Amino acid sequence: MDRHVLPVPLEKALRLINHGPTVLVSASHDGVDNVMAASWVCGLDFAPPKLSAVLASTSKTRELAERSGHFAIQVPTVRQAQLVHAVGNTSGHDAPEKLKRCGVELFRLDGVPAPLVSGCAAWLACRLIPDAHLRDRYDLFAAEVTAAWADDRVFRDGHWQFETADAGWRSLHYIAGGHFYATGDLVAVAETEED
Amino acid sequence: MDRHVLPVPLEKALRLINHGPTVLVSASHDGVDNVMAASWVCGLDFAPPKLSAVLASTSKTRELAERSGHFAIQVPTVRQAQLVHAVGNTSGHDAPEKLKRCGVELFRLDGVPAPLVSGCAAWLACRLIPDAHLRDRYDLFAAEVTAAWADDRVFRDGHWQFETADAGWRSLHYIAGGHFYATGDLVAVAETEED
Repeated sequence: MDRHVLPVPLEKALRLINHGPTVLVSASHDGVDNVMAASWVCGLDFAPPKLSAVLASTSKTRELAERSGHFAIQVPTVRQAQLVHAVGNTSGHDAPEKLKRCGVELFRLDGVPAPLVSGCAAWLACRLIPDAHLRDRYDLFAAEVTAAWADDRVFRDGHWQFETADAGWRSLHYIAGGHFYATGDLVAVAETEED
Repeated sequence: MDRHVLPVPLEKALRLINHGPTVLVSASHDGVDNVMAASWVCGLDFAPPKLSAVLASTSKTRELAERSGHFAIQVPTVRQAQLVHAVGNTSGHDAPEKLKRCGVELFRLDGVPAPLVSGCAAWLACRLIPDAHLRDRYDLFAAEVTAAWADDRVFRDGHWQFETADAGWRSLHYIAGGHFYATGDLVAVAETEED
């Protein structure tokens, strides 16, 4: 494992996605890996940490996630904007060579069924919570976060360090077409006594 | 209505929240208004546009939304960071004077049951989709967006204009405690032929 990839305690794992970044979803089954981009992923519960993800029924990554019962959510960076856009606009069904063509490099961690995308800022290993109602009515999947990691150059001591890290580490926030916004300046509000 | 508050076509309404901003949720029932802050709100479907929102069972705003069948989602700005933090840390159950103390001013639009928070960048009027399974298992609510508006100083012609608007108009992205990040720089990826 890259020496910069450090575990994040589960109770702080949702801080990795609370700011609403566009994420990559990865899954693997029976030797086949795939990765998709997703904007509609967000926190669902704190303890144990859970998140929800909308995964279109046509997506190859969803098929692999359902078959294996696992996916990983990762937080890509500004440097990876072209990669994110590319995997978001190519289906794994159509393009078995998709990952290579999109410049995606994968790595694996012991005990994590889903492959992980190199170069991201953070990774959350997730186990699907079986729920046919969510899936059939909304293409929605609930998952429990079982482990999380972040690159210590941009997330340390339980906090994002965007304001001091190189600007290339900032997260992406998707709008439409090829347009994203980067994560911007820190806004700190004074905690008042009654908080 | 403020002359800067212009309708957003429904097919573009989800662009108002696709970038993952922290939002305010408002609702009204039987003459009682309330507003809460929420990070776990995101898109759910395109046509008709739907979104999902996690609303804790202890929240007064959730009670008003369930009773009326409606809520509004609004996108607050960096200028409102203190307000967002304040409404996120006070319950409407405990503090009937909450809105005044937090500096929240409300306005109303014809045909919209939920009150709207003045000074935000965008507003989405939503009708709850009754679903006891979502609510009871996850504190999750699905809602259809029935109308949307944005302030034309920061969203025009179907696009956010953060890069040219005053920095005070940027959205907030919550992390934890009193910490948010503002929406940052535009990242535009070239569309390739195969897109």
